Formats: sequence, structure tokens, C-alpha cells
Amino acid sequence: MRSALAGLICAAVVAAAAGTGILFQPGAWYAGLIKPAGTPPNILFPIAWTLLYITMALAAWLVWRVRGLGPALWLFGIQLTLNALWSPVVFGAHRLDLGLLVIIALWLAVLATWRAFAAVRPLAGAMLLPYLAWVGFAGYLNAGLLWLNG
Amino acid sequence: MRSALAGLICAAVVAAAAGTGILFQPGAWYAGLIKPAGTPPNILFPIAWTLLYITMALAAWLVWRVRGLGPALWLFGIQLTLNALWSPVVFGAHRLDLGLLVIIALWLAVLATWRAFAAVRPLAGAMLLPYLAWVGFAGYLNAGLLWLNG
Repeated sequence: MRSALAGLICAAVVAAAAGTGILFQPGAWYAGLIKPAGTPPNILFPIAWTLLYITMALAAWLVWRVRGLGPALWLFGIQLTLNALWSPVVFGAHRLDLGLLVIIALWLAVLATWRAFAAVRPLAGAMLLPYLAWVGFAGYLNAGLLWLNG
Repeated sequence: MRSALAGLICAAVVAAAAGTGILFQPGAWYAGLIKPAGTPPNILFPIAWTLLYITMALAAWLVWRVRGLGPALWLFGIQLTLNALWSPVVFGAHRLDLGLLVIIALWLAVLATWRAFAAVRPLAGAMLLPYLAWVGFAGYLNAGLLWLNG
């Protein structure tokens, strides 16, 4: 019962963070930018993010069940906050420079979360690896957009 | 090992069907249509479908593990084929009338699959209920688009 409640909290908190990506979307501004090589079509972003948010919520739940609300989940909260910040900074304020700083900080926070999760439960760590890879890729896209349109 | 293979097959077949939704997207034609009341913003569709494809693949896998490739999974294959057909018919061929027929057939096929899955394993049946509800809603949207733009 307490485990189910933890699962619901993980799902709700991740969904709330994901919500900024629904509120702040690329739109005409993004459509008008010169894109770096390898930019995926728009449709792939919400699909990739839905999958990544599900796996990160499940990973957080696995860690919660083993350790409760400890340091690993505080790291998770920090990375999730940075994650939620990126869409308003870039698609809201159109600040690709600040967006790049956010995404570098996010990548480091996900790296730290991955190590903390892996120490608690290897499966939970492994579930964050696609996310770490995707944020690295998103960082390249952000840097490329800044370079080509700065 | 065989169960993992079945899971991979379920994931691959569902992902292939989902692919038609990536190839055929709403675009300018859909943007120009008069929308029925309650039409969600575009961003919600890929998110909803990603979640629904995941749950339907997991449900199929649960049934496969209990019964192997039996009648319930043949029904699943029929509904999945109808599902894959809708995007090319509507967003490719711009045929809202045929799309409505496809979606009615799809809803009935999902209903039959739900009953078959529930008989094998109640959890697998329950996992199809959000899908059944969403297809009903999508049928309303398709009918509304046909009515308002026919």
C-alpha cells in the first residue's frame, strides 16, 4: 500500500514536470531556425519524452521502494527540476544560450542520479541510461541551434 | 527466454503498427479543418498513443505468456491492423468517411480483444480499457470532423 502510494507520487511528480513541455512548445519560432545535422522530425520528441518519463518514474519508484526518500531521490528531484526548466527557457523565452547551460547542468544531474540509482539498484540505474543518452543528444541539438542561429 | 522473445515480438509488432502514425501526420490539411468541441491540442495525440501502444503491447505479452499465440492474439492482430490503417486513410488519403468506418471496426475489434484478454487474464483485459475509451473518443472526433467539414 505504501509502495503503491510511492509509485503514484513518482508518476505525479514526473507528469507535473513533463507538463512544462506541453505548455511550452516549439511553434513557429523553432520552425524558423536553421537545424543542426541529425535533427529528428518534430513528432519524435513527444514520443521519446513519453517513453523517457515513464522509465524515469519507474526507476525512481524502484529506488524509493528500496531506500525510501533518500539522497538518490533528492538528486532525482534536482534533475527533474532542471528538466522542467528547459522548455520554458528555450521555447518560452527563446534563450538558446541559457537553455544550453540548463541542459549541461541537467546532463550532469542525470549522471549523478544514474550513479546514485545504480548503487541502490542496478536495474534502476540502467533504466536511466537511455535518458542520459537522449539528454546528451538534446545538448548537441541545443548547441547546434545556438551556433547556427546565434 | 521464450517469454522474453514473445515480449520482443509484441513490442516490435506494435511499434511497426505505430509507425504508420509517424509516416502519416495531420499536417496543414488537418490544421485547416473545423474541429468538433473537445478536440485536444495536437501535442496530446502522440503522448496518448505512446502510452496506449505500451499498455497494449504489455497486455498482449501477458496473454501470450499464459496461452501462447491463440485466438485472443489473432483478435489483437486484427485490431492492430485496423489501428495501423487509420492514419494513412485519414491523414494520407484525407478520407474522413472511410476513416470513420475503420474506427468503428477498430472499436469493435478492441472490444472483442478486451473480452478475449479478460477471459485469459483479467489484468490484461483491464489494460485495454483506456485504449477502448480512447478509440471511442477518437471515433467521436472523426465523426465530428466529417460532420463539420463534409
